[in-house]
Amino acid sequence: MASKKLLLVDLDCGVDDAQALMSALAAPGIEILGITCCHGNTTLDNVTCWPRHILYCSTATLDNAFLQIPVYKGASAPLLGYGHSIHASNYHGKDGLGDVPDLSAPGLENVQKEHAVLAMLRLVSLVATGPLTNLALAVNMEPSFPQKLKSLFIMGGNMESRGNVTACGEFNFTCDPEAAYIVLNAYGCPTYIATWEFTFKNYLSWAFHDKWINQETRKAEFMRKICAHAAEFTEKCSDTEEDWTKGFVSCDSYAMAAAVDESCVTGAINCAVSVELAGTLTRGMMVLDITGKLEKKNKAFVITKFDMEKFERFMMAALK
Amino acid sequence: MASKKLLLVDLDCGVDDAQALMSALAAPGIEILGITCCHGNTTLDNVTCWPRHILYCSTATLDNAFLQIPVYKGASAPLLGYGHSIHASNYHGKDGLGDVPDLSAPGLENVQKEHAVLAMLRLVSLVATGPLTNLALAVNMEPSFPQKLKSLFIMGGNMESRGNVTACGEFNFTCDPEAAYIVLNAYGCPTYIATWEFTFKNYLSWAFHDKWINQETRKAEFMRKICAHAAEFTEKCSDTEEDWTKGFVSCDSYAMAAAVDESCVTGAINCAVSVELAGTLTRGMMVLDITGKLEKKNKAFVITKFDMEKFERFMMAALK
Amino acid sequence: MASKKLLLVDLDCGVDDAQALMSALAAPGIEILGITCCHGNTTLDNVTCWPRHILYCSTATLDNAFLQIPVYKGASAPLLGYGHSIHASNYHGKDGLGDVPDLSAPGLENVQKEHAVLAMLRLVSLVATGPLTNLALAVNMEPSFPQKLKSLFIMGGNMESRGNVTACGEFNFTCDPEAAYIVLNAYGCPTYIATWEFTFKNYLSWAFHDKWINQETRKAEFMRKICAHAAEFTEKCSDTEEDWTKGFVSCDSYAMAAAVDESCVTGAINCAVSVELAGTLTRGMMVLDITGKLEKKNKAFVITKFDMEKFERFMMAALK
Amino acid sequence: MASKKLLLVDLDCGVDDAQALMSALAAPGIEILGITCCHGNTTLDNVTCWPRHILYCSTATLDNAFLQIPVYKGASAPLLGYGHSIHASNYHGKDGLGDVPDLSAPGLENVQKEHAVLAMLRLVSLVATGPLTNLALAVNMEPSFPQKLKSLFIMGGNMESRGNVTACGEFNFTCDPEAAYIVLNAYGCPTYIATWEFTFKNYLSWAFHDKWINQETRKAEFMRKICAHAAEFTEKCSDTEEDWTKGFVSCDSYAMAAAVDESCVTGAINCAVSVELAGTLTRGMMVLDITGKLEKKNKAFVITKFDMEKFERFMMAALK
Repeated sequence: MASKKLLLVDLDCGVDDAQALMSALAAPGIEILGITCCHGNTTLDNVTCWPRHILYCSTATLDNAFLQIPVYKGASAPLLGYGHSIHASNYHGKDGLGDVPDLSAPGLENVQKEHAVLAMLRLVSLVATGPLTNLALAVNMEPSFPQKLKSLFIMGGNMESRGNVTACGEFNFTCDPEAAYIVLNAYGCPTYIATWEFTFKNYLSWAFHDKWINQETRKAEFMRKICAHAAEFTEKCSDTEEDWTKGFVSCDSYAMAAAVDESCVTGAINCAVSVELAGTLTRGMMVLDITGKLEKKNKAFVITKFDMEKFERFMMAALK
Repeated sequence: MASKKLLLVDLDCGVDDAQALMSALAAPGIEILGITCCHGNTTLDNVTCWPRHILYCSTATLDNAFLQIPVYKGASAPLLGYGHSIHASNYHGKDGLGDVPDLSAPGLENVQKEHAVLAMLRLVSLVATGPLTNLALAVNMEPSFPQKLKSLFIMGGNMESRGNVTACGEFNFTCDPEAAYIVLNAYGCPTYIATWEFTFKNYLSWAFHDKWINQETRKAEFMRKICAHAAEFTEKCSDTEEDWTKGFVSCDSYAMAAAVDESCVTGAINCAVSVELAGTLTRGMMVLDITGKLEKKNKAFVITKFDMEKFERFMMAALK
Repeated sequence: MASKKLLLVDLDCGVDDAQALMSALAAPGIEILGITCCHGNTTLDNVTCWPRHILYCSTATLDNAFLQIPVYKGASAPLLGYGHSIHASNYHGKDGLGDVPDLSAPGLENVQKEHAVLAMLRLVSLVATGPLTNLALAVNMEPSFPQKLKSLFIMGGNMESRGNVTACGEFNFTCDPEAAYIVLNAYGCPTYIATWEFTFKNYLSWAFHDKWINQETRKAEFMRKICAHAAEFTEKCSDTEEDWTKGFVSCDSYAMAAAVDESCVTGAINCAVSVELAGTLTRGMMVLDITGKLEKKNKAFVITKFDMEKFERFMMAALK
Repeated sequence: MASKKLLLVDLDCGVDDAQALMSALAAPGIEILGITCCHGNTTLDNVTCWPRHILYCSTATLDNAFLQIPVYKGASAPLLGYGHSIHASNYHGKDGLGDVPDLSAPGLENVQKEHAVLAMLRLVSLVATGPLTNLALAVNMEPSFPQKLKSLFIMGGNMESRGNVTACGEFNFTCDPEAAYIVLNAYGCPTYIATWEFTFKNYLSWAFHDKWINQETRKAEFMRKICAHAAEFTEKCSDTEEDWTKGFVSCDSYAMAAAVDESCVTGAINCAVSVELAGTLTRGMMVLDITGKLEKKNKAFVITKFDMEKFERFMMAALK
């Protein structure tokens, strides 16, 4: 029997964090070792309350194995104490998961006492779908940590200077640019990055979305509820050229799919990457050093192509 | 009889500046009112010596009309006094036009006494193929100048954060970022920008290049000579991913072709643009504000598509 | 007979500009060659209208020699097109000279047609009491200009990181940091700088001020009028620690006095200086490189001590 | 019986760290709860080895109480992974304490297993004499930590833009500007800062130094040895204007003396402070917001005057 792939998930719930997590829970051969929580789409307390509810919704049977997955509270603010626009409640709702009246996150009672960063230091494989504050603190506390990691999967940053919160900056990176800088420079392990441009160019069709969300399962019902708010926001939205609204974009799910099955990644630029910290217009922008001008050793895989069929199956399974 | 289109050319010769200028000289319905010179690919003195030689090479007959086009000396250094790598002699040769032993630029004797910036202020339509120092000084001296311009065509900047002199910075903009910033912010006239990414993605085939350069004319002979050095450099070059060497890229000629015939431009993003001045990794990078986050009034046309057939005809005529 | 000292005055009227100019007009052995105007304390048009009125008020007799001094219009905005807080009308009044109902600046009719920057390039000695935009443009237009200057006297910048418009930035420098940077780096001539900290630490007593302003002369009457607004502002002001309100501080007059008689300067730090352009908190701050870490050739004299008796005589004469 | 003052010392040994620590150990009414170590003057491993040796040298009797003071290993590098000039071995010696041949730091055997940052979070009063990396990590891990602190004493930063490692930057702050920024912004407890300018202007006389170091005690003998290297460096040094070599400057001891006895502080500016992160010339510079322009709530006491008699007694006792 093949050994399971062990995964730590660092997230900032978030509708797409929920989508990504549910997909991973449904994937075969994966064991989620823990869930570490980071400020981001909503406050740290909100973020920390949701995972156990998602785990609960994802267990169709009375099998409570999922409920044993420990949840850890991490950083409540960016390293420098301020971010672009602390939260993204216009999209994700004030509670981070669509402000659904008849859903309510459980309290913080069952959350682990250990700090997310310290828990992270004991573990071995990592997907990060929120700001990278916890990961930055982990390497600052323990510089040898990245050497222990088998691989790191990140949703964040951008590759063609198209931002979603500033002209050039993507949410997760702009939320804590120093943390992103630290992680991209200090994590020497194999690193895969699903950028904002990559995700919105590789959208799923609305037809897929409708089929996906209209499955007659408890999980699909849950998803329908938490997605309603974001869908409404997207409809009103009229971002021109980029047209990221012409399909269904579940940003975090790309990083998660790659973590679960690396063969999803069918194309990537392998180059050094960094983050602009000082810029007036570009603070938080991810920089690709394609021609080696920065003379950095660390390289990352900036994902450019994805096996969309595999990805659709990965997503579809989440709500079955 | 239709009136001629009047054009002022600001350049920093430069092999591709020469290509662009010769194409414009060969184009019907165009009158070049003057040539203003800017530091850039080579020193200002070098830049200023070449135009009259190019004009001379471009007149097949004894008709000396071209030799009446006045040449003006402009700014010898970027506004702040330092640029990225002052010149680009590795590509353009030490003298700016391929270091051809049996060619030598005439002296500065016949250059106008008036400063390029002051000449510019008297004129009406503008193509800029070098750093934008002269244009910045012009608007700093005379804030109402841009209102008099019918249109402005620029080769420079980038649109997807791919640089050629720094990780994110294109040569002309990075050479004098403050000048580029001033021009993009203060020039309210219709402005068309051919960026580095646009030009290298819309390369001409090497087959075209060979046919173009092997015409049996005096102009083609001149071009063969001045291109040899750059061709050698390109061959040695192994820039990966971008692969800007897989075709013939005459950067400045795109801006010139658009100036001569706007219908060459078949696609463009119309958005506010600016330049990062403060960044550590991104200083000099052009920023596109596609979704209006910067709340700027001025918009430019960032060229995305070109009528390549027209462009080939425009180029081919240059050496006939 | 000793030859006169020839001086060009670049100013941004301003109450203390007026004070400085009137003092220089009253000083023996000085010939003012011209007055160039720069945006700053008020709009360029306002600035440009006042000098002829001041010249008129400074001629007690029917001798109109002062009225022959040419006035030139210069830059209307900082190089990058925006400054800290464009003007300082809270202190200097909306018209730049105290909003005195029965005074009104003459129009722009008698202003020279030549641009201030071009006029500057023909001249030989320079005092600058406003933002340095004109001086920056002059050296950008003509890099050899500073070599022709005998000496340069500047009011502006700071030497101990105490600002008056931002936490660390003085008005003239913060108004156009790039211009200040260019001037401090490109002007190789002997340069004397009267910083904000220097001026407010070397205030004149209010007793002197009262004696000075209550002389029974037409000039004193003019001064009383234009100073009233600023005095009112100062009284309301409660800047703590610095306590720049405990005496009479005529900032620009220190630079002018030094220009008229260098022996006023009895102490100075001779070191390389520069200006921070990129800082978030310190943009526009003057940096002293006392221990040579920047390895710059150019050094300036940052004034630390002044012959206050000479200075009082210089000021007192202005209104006689 | 009065209760003892409880103190945690965060240091980066360092000759003056040793001086400060020995003075505190000799002071009555003080209990040192622990020593946390930070990269800085030398590598983290070097820094971490020395405290136990200093403790050993400071116990004249067989009383081993000092040897019970726990020593914790903290951050080995600045938050962003790079600092100005990682270490200051030219002054402090390669091993951080003067490279004395017959002294050698014990190994790391007796160092606590707990991370310095986690130890810090359990404790209550703090003196920091090195880069502020540990303190920044502490508040990033636990935002409520500063509320628990009674007071914080820092040696670092500057107050008049005079730097010692860059033109405007002091060593401890420039070594990790982000950490300094985080601490100055996030620590709401009463905070006292002994800046570089404050310390070098309040030097002790060389006569005092000679008397101090020539006491016939084991501690003085130890001090003579570890100071020799730094004294040699200072003699060679010829920093002009500042003249910080005209007296004996034990930087860290001022912060320690203030921590031990707050009445040493006889003058201070109480204002908001911050750190420039983005500047090209001023990165790492401490900014004093004397006139409230930054509109920050947190204020610190920037020390300006000291009871030098008390300070001499404090220092003298260290080697008795």
